[in-house]
Amino acid sequence: MAQKVVTFGEIMMRLNTPGYLRLVQAGQLEVSYAGGEPNVAASLANFGLPAYFVTKVPDNLVGQAAINHLRRYGVNTDYVVRGGERLGLYFVETGASQRPSKVIYDRKHSAISAARVEEFNWEEIFRDISWFHITGITPALSDQAAELSLEAVKRAKKAGATVSCDINYRKNLWSPEKANQVMSRMMSDVDMVIANEEDAEKVFGIKAEDSDVVGGKLDPEGYRSVARQISDRFGISRVAITLRESYSASDNGWSALFYDQGRYYQSRQYNIHIIDRVGGGDSFAGGLIYALLSGYDSQTAVDFAVAASCLKHTLPGDFNLVTLDEVKNLMAGDGSGRVQR
Amino acid sequence: MAQKVVTFGEIMMRLNTPGYLRLVQAGQLEVSYAGGEPNVAASLANFGLPAYFVTKVPDNLVGQAAINHLRRYGVNTDYVVRGGERLGLYFVETGASQRPSKVIYDRKHSAISAARVEEFNWEEIFRDISWFHITGITPALSDQAAELSLEAVKRAKKAGATVSCDINYRKNLWSPEKANQVMSRMMSDVDMVIANEEDAEKVFGIKAEDSDVVGGKLDPEGYRSVARQISDRFGISRVAITLRESYSASDNGWSALFYDQGRYYQSRQYNIHIIDRVGGGDSFAGGLIYALLSGYDSQTAVDFAVAASCLKHTLPGDFNLVTLDEVKNLMAGDGSGRVQR
Amino acid sequence: MAQKVVTFGEIMMRLNTPGYLRLVQAGQLEVSYAGGEPNVAASLANFGLPAYFVTKVPDNLVGQAAINHLRRYGVNTDYVVRGGERLGLYFVETGASQRPSKVIYDRKHSAISAARVEEFNWEEIFRDISWFHITGITPALSDQAAELSLEAVKRAKKAGATVSCDINYRKNLWSPEKANQVMSRMMSDVDMVIANEEDAEKVFGIKAEDSDVVGGKLDPEGYRSVARQISDRFGISRVAITLRESYSASDNGWSALFYDQGRYYQSRQYNIHIIDRVGGGDSFAGGLIYALLSGYDSQTAVDFAVAASCLKHTLPGDFNLVTLDEVKNLMAGDGSGRVQR
Amino acid sequence: MAQKVVTFGEIMMRLNTPGYLRLVQAGQLEVSYAGGEPNVAASLANFGLPAYFVTKVPDNLVGQAAINHLRRYGVNTDYVVRGGERLGLYFVETGASQRPSKVIYDRKHSAISAARVEEFNWEEIFRDISWFHITGITPALSDQAAELSLEAVKRAKKAGATVSCDINYRKNLWSPEKANQVMSRMMSDVDMVIANEEDAEKVFGIKAEDSDVVGGKLDPEGYRSVARQISDRFGISRVAITLRESYSASDNGWSALFYDQGRYYQSRQYNIHIIDRVGGGDSFAGGLIYALLSGYDSQTAVDFAVAASCLKHTLPGDFNLVTLDEVKNLMAGDGSGRVQR
Amino acid sequence: MAQKVVTFGEIMMRLNTPGYLRLVQAGQLEVSYAGGEPNVAASLANFGLPAYFVTKVPDNLVGQAAINHLRRYGVNTDYVVRGGERLGLYFVETGASQRPSKVIYDRKHSAISAARVEEFNWEEIFRDISWFHITGITPALSDQAAELSLEAVKRAKKAGATVSCDINYRKNLWSPEKANQVMSRMMSDVDMVIANEEDAEKVFGIKAEDSDVVGGKLDPEGYRSVARQISDRFGISRVAITLRESYSASDNGWSALFYDQGRYYQSRQYNIHIIDRVGGGDSFAGGLIYALLSGYDSQTAVDFAVAASCLKHTLPGDFNLVTLDEVKNLMAGDGSGRVQR
Amino acid sequence: MAQKVVTFGEIMMRLNTPGYLRLVQAGQLEVSYAGGEPNVAASLANFGLPAYFVTKVPDNLVGQAAINHLRRYGVNTDYVVRGGERLGLYFVETGASQRPSKVIYDRKHSAISAARVEEFNWEEIFRDISWFHITGITPALSDQAAELSLEAVKRAKKAGATVSCDINYRKNLWSPEKANQVMSRMMSDVDMVIANEEDAEKVFGIKAEDSDVVGGKLDPEGYRSVARQISDRFGISRVAITLRESYSASDNGWSALFYDQGRYYQSRQYNIHIIDRVGGGDSFAGGLIYALLSGYDSQTAVDFAVAASCLKHTLPGDFNLVTLDEVKNLMAGDGSGRVQR
Repeated sequence: MAQKVVTFGEIMMRLNTPGYLRLVQAGQLEVSYAGGEPNVAASLANFGLPAYFVTKVPDNLVGQAAINHLRRYGVNTDYVVRGGERLGLYFVETGASQRPSKVIYDRKHSAISAARVEEFNWEEIFRDISWFHITGITPALSDQAAELSLEAVKRAKKAGATVSCDINYRKNLWSPEKANQVMSRMMSDVDMVIANEEDAEKVFGIKAEDSDVVGGKLDPEGYRSVARQISDRFGISRVAITLRESYSASDNGWSALFYDQGRYYQSRQYNIHIIDRVGGGDSFAGGLIYALLSGYDSQTAVDFAVAASCLKHTLPGDFNLVTLDEVKNLMAGDGSGRVQR
Repeated sequence: MAQKVVTFGEIMMRLNTPGYLRLVQAGQLEVSYAGGEPNVAASLANFGLPAYFVTKVPDNLVGQAAINHLRRYGVNTDYVVRGGERLGLYFVETGASQRPSKVIYDRKHSAISAARVEEFNWEEIFRDISWFHITGITPALSDQAAELSLEAVKRAKKAGATVSCDINYRKNLWSPEKANQVMSRMMSDVDMVIANEEDAEKVFGIKAEDSDVVGGKLDPEGYRSVARQISDRFGISRVAITLRESYSASDNGWSALFYDQGRYYQSRQYNIHIIDRVGGGDSFAGGLIYALLSGYDSQTAVDFAVAASCLKHTLPGDFNLVTLDEVKNLMAGDGSGRVQR
Repeated sequence: MAQKVVTFGEIMMRLNTPGYLRLVQAGQLEVSYAGGEPNVAASLANFGLPAYFVTKVPDNLVGQAAINHLRRYGVNTDYVVRGGERLGLYFVETGASQRPSKVIYDRKHSAISAARVEEFNWEEIFRDISWFHITGITPALSDQAAELSLEAVKRAKKAGATVSCDINYRKNLWSPEKANQVMSRMMSDVDMVIANEEDAEKVFGIKAEDSDVVGGKLDPEGYRSVARQISDRFGISRVAITLRESYSASDNGWSALFYDQGRYYQSRQYNIHIIDRVGGGDSFAGGLIYALLSGYDSQTAVDFAVAASCLKHTLPGDFNLVTLDEVKNLMAGDGSGRVQR
Repeated sequence: MAQKVVTFGEIMMRLNTPGYLRLVQAGQLEVSYAGGEPNVAASLANFGLPAYFVTKVPDNLVGQAAINHLRRYGVNTDYVVRGGERLGLYFVETGASQRPSKVIYDRKHSAISAARVEEFNWEEIFRDISWFHITGITPALSDQAAELSLEAVKRAKKAGATVSCDINYRKNLWSPEKANQVMSRMMSDVDMVIANEEDAEKVFGIKAEDSDVVGGKLDPEGYRSVARQISDRFGISRVAITLRESYSASDNGWSALFYDQGRYYQSRQYNIHIIDRVGGGDSFAGGLIYALLSGYDSQTAVDFAVAASCLKHTLPGDFNLVTLDEVKNLMAGDGSGRVQR
Repeated sequence: MAQKVVTFGEIMMRLNTPGYLRLVQAGQLEVSYAGGEPNVAASLANFGLPAYFVTKVPDNLVGQAAINHLRRYGVNTDYVVRGGERLGLYFVETGASQRPSKVIYDRKHSAISAARVEEFNWEEIFRDISWFHITGITPALSDQAAELSLEAVKRAKKAGATVSCDINYRKNLWSPEKANQVMSRMMSDVDMVIANEEDAEKVFGIKAEDSDVVGGKLDPEGYRSVARQISDRFGISRVAITLRESYSASDNGWSALFYDQGRYYQSRQYNIHIIDRVGGGDSFAGGLIYALLSGYDSQTAVDFAVAASCLKHTLPGDFNLVTLDEVKNLMAGDGSGRVQR
Repeated sequence: MAQKVVTFGEIMMRLNTPGYLRLVQAGQLEVSYAGGEPNVAASLANFGLPAYFVTKVPDNLVGQAAINHLRRYGVNTDYVVRGGERLGLYFVETGASQRPSKVIYDRKHSAISAARVEEFNWEEIFRDISWFHITGITPALSDQAAELSLEAVKRAKKAGATVSCDINYRKNLWSPEKANQVMSRMMSDVDMVIANEEDAEKVFGIKAEDSDVVGGKLDPEGYRSVARQISDRFGISRVAITLRESYSASDNGWSALFYDQGRYYQSRQYNIHIIDRVGGGDSFAGGLIYALLSGYDSQTAVDFAVAASCLKHTLPGDFNLVTLDEVKNLMAGDGSGRVQR
């Protein structure tokens, strides 16, 4: 199979209040299923690649619903293991203007967080694999999940896959020290790192000078320095840094820097009026992997990834469901939003 | 305060598919908050008594939403403790005709299941208490919850409360042996037991002859025997047995037997076209406690409880929100369902 | 214009909880616009007659929405007067099984209740009129409305219309004494009366023996006596009596008796599994007027009216939106409910 | 691949009014995707078989949505061809009591109705096939579709598949004469026929005596005669006849007769309180094919198929989403609808 | 009848995903009925003129629903012909920010596209007519529709109507060559043309220099040149050009140029935060016709039309439902959006 | 009880069209319960103070639903009187861009507007009171309500409460003359006034120079003058003026000036992308009272109040449901809207 991609991690039930309601107001919740790695798999399947998501879900109607959600959007679920205690879940209150979106996790004790290496059929999973993707969330779930993640990465690498990792530091899941220890080990098998400034600083202590995240002003030079430092420290040739300028919960600037084999490629910046920001970073990762697997040059690859993820911000749900044509139109400069008939 | 009632146990988030959808089909879920003991508190508050529900919920927006739900329906939440890991939750698929309703629990590791005796301000909780109610679900949550439940019952009794317990055996939570051991200890402080045939057999090994639950045919004589045996074994003067004949998920027969001080009081039977069966048993308990606290005689009390819970089956959600007048009209024989203008 | 029909009265905003929710549970309400006389106009327009509804609504967006609702279903609103204080409204909680539907009115001070005779262009309203219909609700709204109603009936009669009146006694609006006084005056201009047993007894003191409304058993003989007494007392040649047997809020028996020129015509009885009972009686009136204007014989007319209103009970909303073919199929004996493709 | 099943035909967009609304009342429509053959594929995938649905859908977002819907429920869409003019669609108004459900088709000029034999990769489609299923709807779509259907059946047979056909006569699509001519040709390659009484009479002129469809009373003897006649005329060893007794749109009797190798197997009859009747027959076909592929004996097979399709009537949507366990529980006699926790 | 207006063309079912969902995500669709010419009729009816829409719709529940939708908003449907194969329909995915709204048409084989001249009662339609409006969409539907459109325009002109035409070039329906040929013929009977820059160029080859549509920068001078060229070529005294600057799918600039009897009238420009852009152009046409029929001077007319259509962009659905007062307040300079109580 | 707060006035049913629909388009309305004074009580309860709302509501299911809504959000309803004719209500159409939100009141004849002084248990209400709040809406409801309001204020003052009043001039309810007369009397017992420029001018004839409300440009100096004049005229030491710059219905500038003991404290200004503007002013009042009761200094108090009410504009519904932490984060400068996990 050409360009088989595998992502490995956790899928959760996403429970979203409708519109801009708070949880205390809601009588209905919108339900979907998502997570860092399944979001990336969905992006890749959406663009037409054979994308597999590997995880463990409980053997009940909730686990089945998560699988059906993945299948609906073309993600192959043949390697998903069934069993364990529960499916993790998270609640989302969508923010607006000065009010931030709020994500409340209830993911402890999930099936994947307690899964063991021997439960997965690694041979089949990695047969003919081209690319493997993981995020820094999965190893953060538990000590067991950290070992499982490291093992999966190691095996993927050994099977010949290009391995990418989105650092995605989550302060609720582990400490910077713990993250540093685990992620540094993982880096030895990683070919491409995706991160934002906060990730680099919190996990690796790598810091860009003179940039101000809260105030919404970012310094491109700083990001170059961060990318180069990551590359140098771990001997990783490709590092992508996403740059989000949060003017408000409703409006963001969005761009990225791609450091590839010692050269910098800066994307253009989009000012986005946001519909749903959750999953935005994952859609960048999905776009970048797709572009590189498709043989795009480095500049085109980061442009594609940023355009794809720009469009994801205009769609409800974590999954990026825009077409290749829509991404290419935007890359070609048509951000006019004129009705397509 | 006259007739202060306290119920103690677990409140969960209830996530319901709309209409008759299965979970795999649903894009929205209806959200409310319920559980055996909060359902009883809501019934009592609804009928006008000062009803308190005591539990522990996580100190986040989900816990707050549960509290707001209780407050909305008049339940006093002043004694609710905040903290712990998570709020339990359950999914409901409403059945119809030959398809049973399906309840999927995700309640492990909940705040209340890990709560400790010393976290509660028992003195305040039990000040001026008239009645205390618990179910067999709460002690089944964990060993710690069993000890907590037994302690709560003991203190309630000591504080002068009438103590009622709805056996409510849940096979997913504990074994019959474990249930027997814990519930038998609890019985020594209980003044009134509520059970159905299955509870009595599974938990106490008390069995009625010649009755057939699955086939939907029940034998009143058998129930009398069950009630009397419970009463005799534990020295409990009041035992109520609910009698459900399940013709289908859409239509049930519903009645109860009340064994009070050695005499049997049989209610009339209602044939109910069901809207939402979940919480039906709790609304019987709520009705019975209300009736007894209001000084109704034994026959009127069981008639009130059955009429109240009959009406609950016609309402979405676990809580019983019918008015006293509506219950009394039904008791008075008006089951005609004529429009009230 | 052939067979122009005018109905005169009040249209209100109907606010309905979704499904079987109670008002205290609802975060959304379904909104439509209805009332005794507009419901009849909608039936007639639906069957293809030029039907006008005459009323007064406030000159604001709420009044406009009521007009748009009427227009949507083909009712001509050219004679509707704009002005006055407010549009009346009512809340509906749909019942099920033993729980009755609940209607809460908030209709005082409505525009029509305070309208004056001279506000209406009677000449145009009654030009070429064939039939005029009113109910006993409109004169009950206020003293002024009573005078307005009596005047409207008198002018309709004078203009050559056949005049029908559905007694529709509403105990919340006036006393039996007041109703008797006003309705008796109205009867002198009425050609056809529609009533149920309760109407006849409450308003005119006319009573059928041996029938039991609450218990759900009705005595056909009693109804014959009621019809004949009404006819005799007021010299009205046509009297239709609707017979509802309320087994529960979910299931009703439904039939009618038509007393025409001294002969009795009994319809068949339908056992209806109810979706929305509100407006059921009005759809009978609409069906009967349509049938008589279409020249159906007396037996066919009452059969048509009962079949039409039987089908209305299976539709949400007050308006009867079934097609002529659907009514005729049911009259022809096909109540099998087989899918029509 | 063991037991690969292929169904071939049309998938349409299904647009359903919510609840019991009529189309003129609706501001929202519920959207799903269904059809005779995709419904059967969904049943088989749901029970765990590798089920493929083959069709042609337009190469636009509507065609994609149909594919995603199939994938969601586990149907393999690898052989679906993209192109052509449009996706057919149909509107459903759900009936109740005496009001029949109404299906309005808008399916002319659909992609599949104009598809050509050479557009499909038959070799791949039929590689390792075990079973092929088609209905009488597909050949009725157009002359071209008739030829395409006959060709598909012929090739499936040649590839070694067991071929089943559900007659499913649709009077809106073709005349009895045309149907007879085409379906008789098809029968020569068919191993199992599924039909109801009306199908047999309309298409093949085969009639059962003394049975009354409209009145809702059916004669089992008549059905035996119909099955035997079909078997004899076309030399088909297996004929299944579904028996629906329509008491009303809300309540049906449902059973089936299976004539297998000269012996009759009668299922039990279920009285069903209906949630959604559309797709009921297809779920019988899916259940029967599953049972036979699973090696069930003839009596068990028809019992399974009837139980499975009984449960489908309690679910919204065309697809049958009940679990194997749920079907087996019902077969084992538990139609009590007791809550499953 | 004073100022009777007739518009002639196609009405379709509009199926809209809720919020910003894509079609593959949607479980519900919002349904309404709209089209170029019915949208204009709705604007005129909304402002109080007697507006008729003439078309042909299928004689089924779908056609009826389209008629009811028109009636609801005050459009007279007395001349609508019933019959033919189907009602056209279109799907709308509402875009945001850089993601354009997407319209997918399924309108081939519609009743109106196959209608014949002799099916319409032209004499009645054009009796007392003041104004006739058509768009370039209707003749594009089919050759037959082109002939029908030309005939309708000719007869309207002959009957004394002022004839307006909105060019509305649709590349999916016909080629520029075909459009040029038909529309040029139509122009001989047209009194007022409405167009945007793209229309003029595609259909008539009339081009404005130095303007850049995609980039969102427009050159007013260029538009003047376009208007004058149209006027000169066809001898049409009034030409209105709408000027849309698409900053994004969420934010547009909106203004217009009106060339009347050789003079230019430029409206002010509104920067609109868009709720629903579909139907925006039609609401301009409706506003302009209303203003001219009301005797407004040329500057006021174009100001009214632009203000009216500016407000339409803030409303869901194709129809413009703003009040005269709301338009006039905006014209008077109050775009502050302060709450009106 | 420490810091008991009482607000006194009217609660109404709020009926909101979904999204940006107009009332004529809506098939559903969102229902909640709100009003000037209950909104303030909800803010205070939300921030954790013991807040009581005192009013009179009808003794029916509508009144009960209003009470349940208050309880849900923590407002104590123990002093609410039941009786009277009806609950007032209002309709909201949410505007966007140039289209203003529209509020239509139907509040005449409400229970509170006809309530009498002796119906309330003032002694209990004012026992241990710290703060009393009222708005200028309540005395405007009727002459009786004016007397009731003045009496309530007087008694609150006498009981030792700090009394605040939000002028909130409503031109639909009374004339400037009448307002001046009543509100001037009330001022003698008031300790803190909240107003906007329009209030001051309309009610007290106090005017700021050189400010332009409609055009959206405001002059801070003018506001200082207004505040000082109010303070001087009535001898009130604290006057807060809210400053809204309405750029459009979607975007507002929002800030406030607080004049406290002769010194001016100006808040920062927030540019808000609005979700729901209704209740915005009340959330300022709630924030200010909370801040002052919490002992914040004057500058911090006005900063807190403006930040709290800024966030309220991003939430649907009248009640402000943001947490203390969210307000404090915004005050600390984090308006970036970054996702909170």
